[in-house]
Amino acid sequence: MRVVVALGGNALSPPGGTGTVEEMRESLTTAAAALASLVEDGHSLVLTHGNGPQVGRLLLQQERAASDVPPMPMDVCGALSQGQLGYLVAQALDNALRHRRLPARVLSLVTQVVVDGRSPAFRRPSKPVGPSYELPEAQAIAQASGHVFAVQPDGRWRRVVASPKPLRIVEEAPLRALVDAGHVVVAAGGGGVPVVEHRGQLHGVEAVVDKDRTAGLLAVAVGADLLMVLTEVSRVQVGYGTAEARSLSSLTVAEASAWLKAGEFPEGSMGPKIEACVGFVRAGGAAAIGALSEAAAVLAGDAGTRLLP
Amino acid sequence: MRVVVALGGNALSPPGGTGTVEEMRESLTTAAAALASLVEDGHSLVLTHGNGPQVGRLLLQQERAASDVPPMPMDVCGALSQGQLGYLVAQALDNALRHRRLPARVLSLVTQVVVDGRSPAFRRPSKPVGPSYELPEAQAIAQASGHVFAVQPDGRWRRVVASPKPLRIVEEAPLRALVDAGHVVVAAGGGGVPVVEHRGQLHGVEAVVDKDRTAGLLAVAVGADLLMVLTEVSRVQVGYGTAEARSLSSLTVAEASAWLKAGEFPEGSMGPKIEACVGFVRAGGAAAIGALSEAAAVLAGDAGTRLLP
Repeated sequence: MRVVVALGGNALSPPGGTGTVEEMRESLTTAAAALASLVEDGHSLVLTHGNGPQVGRLLLQQERAASDVPPMPMDVCGALSQGQLGYLVAQALDNALRHRRLPARVLSLVTQVVVDGRSPAFRRPSKPVGPSYELPEAQAIAQASGHVFAVQPDGRWRRVVASPKPLRIVEEAPLRALVDAGHVVVAAGGGGVPVVEHRGQLHGVEAVVDKDRTAGLLAVAVGADLLMVLTEVSRVQVGYGTAEARSLSSLTVAEASAWLKAGEFPEGSMGPKIEACVGFVRAGGAAAIGALSEAAAVLAGDAGTRLLP
Repeated sequence: MRVVVALGGNALSPPGGTGTVEEMRESLTTAAAALASLVEDGHSLVLTHGNGPQVGRLLLQQERAASDVPPMPMDVCGALSQGQLGYLVAQALDNALRHRRLPARVLSLVTQVVVDGRSPAFRRPSKPVGPSYELPEAQAIAQASGHVFAVQPDGRWRRVVASPKPLRIVEEAPLRALVDAGHVVVAAGGGGVPVVEHRGQLHGVEAVVDKDRTAGLLAVAVGADLLMVLTEVSRVQVGYGTAEARSLSSLTVAEASAWLKAGEFPEGSMGPKIEACVGFVRAGGAAAIGALSEAAAVLAGDAGTRLLP
């Protein structure tokens, strides 16, 4: 089966960690073992991943050195993180495949994603990126940089950028060729580097793209049979935090859409995962959400939450 | 003709510049126009590039934020720069091709290069990376980080790392498949991410690989007809700075080898370029060194310095 796997940022460096490369390699070794099992079972993999914590650290480094080194815009930050994570993810998974003597090799592609420059997302940037600040410091940075800041639930302030919908994967043709040739490909990390198309030319934009949404697009682009969104929770829940809370082994596209509308799934976490799955099932594919540690069982339908037409 | 082009770091951001993304894009637009002409003439391109100034800036950013964000080792810094530059280079060249309505698309591959972990280069790190410091500051950083510093010709101190010879390009097979399929591929940026192979597993190492040496390897790997090392000078010179200085329109492998041994070509600049060309000509290919601005003429043999068997 051809499977697109979307990995959460926590599979790449643990939440609450300090962000050392050793920590990242340790998390990735665990993730790679789970994913190698899928390849061992004969499946063809395309892997995409988040980059939130890593870009956050890059932004902090850039800010600290801003008097000597000009900070890069968000598209370039996304590209930096694709290099970093693409390398670490590909190496970890490739080593896991080599360990099992599997012939498929892993490689990472720098991937751009076209977004609509006239998307309302650009007028109302809402996706927090980078470190959080007390108001005075946020104001000072905003004045010096022109960045937009917004107050967060914890009362602190973070830079916010647009998070427009991904429309098209620029490197779709070579990506598909690589998958057809039997390679495991890491692509569109962090949702892809956001670009707009204007008079046939591509230009990077100050935005981030949701990695789950891009995963849905990726699944269509490579003709996947299954989109698998892997995270820490073993199943999608409804009624979270209430007496009626329940975990779902499956839900239909109609149910999912209704719950999405009702705000059952938070925008920053489960929402885009469900949305991506709904989109791919509507396009004729299969989709599931589950825990990375149970990847093989999620693929087999024995764990996780399956989206039904 | 299948051509591997090695671009100097100055084609990516001008020397003496401040390192803004606008500056980089401007340099790249110029470079892309020269390279697009080659594609227009029907040639198939594989592009590799330096990353010295960009990694230098990353290292400075990492150092300034070191109390909050753990700095990354050199292999990961190389990967970061491959993402950044791979994106910017591919986008600039792709836009130039689109502008001329050429069908070939450009993409960037995160590329690892295997080096020998027992290379003497690791016992005697000599390649300067990152910013330069006065002695007391270098000593303080060396103590805190364990990095090795060496005094430079200007009396200031810089971190030095190993620069072992590249032995093998890890992503050789998919790279070749992409070139065969008609894509322009940006690969092995900064000489490639250095890794060692131990019991069938790949591990990143604290090193940098010379981009010209890797370009020579790349030319063999993709079965190139021509290796073209593009830089700022229009021709290789001998007797530089003396009354007998002369520019060469060609030189034989035997002459080049003798001059290399005699120390005619400096280690940090023309030496590895000549070495890479000599190696590729010995392997049966053709090789030339010349100015980026004259790329088409260098390819045609009307400019630059051609290496002869």
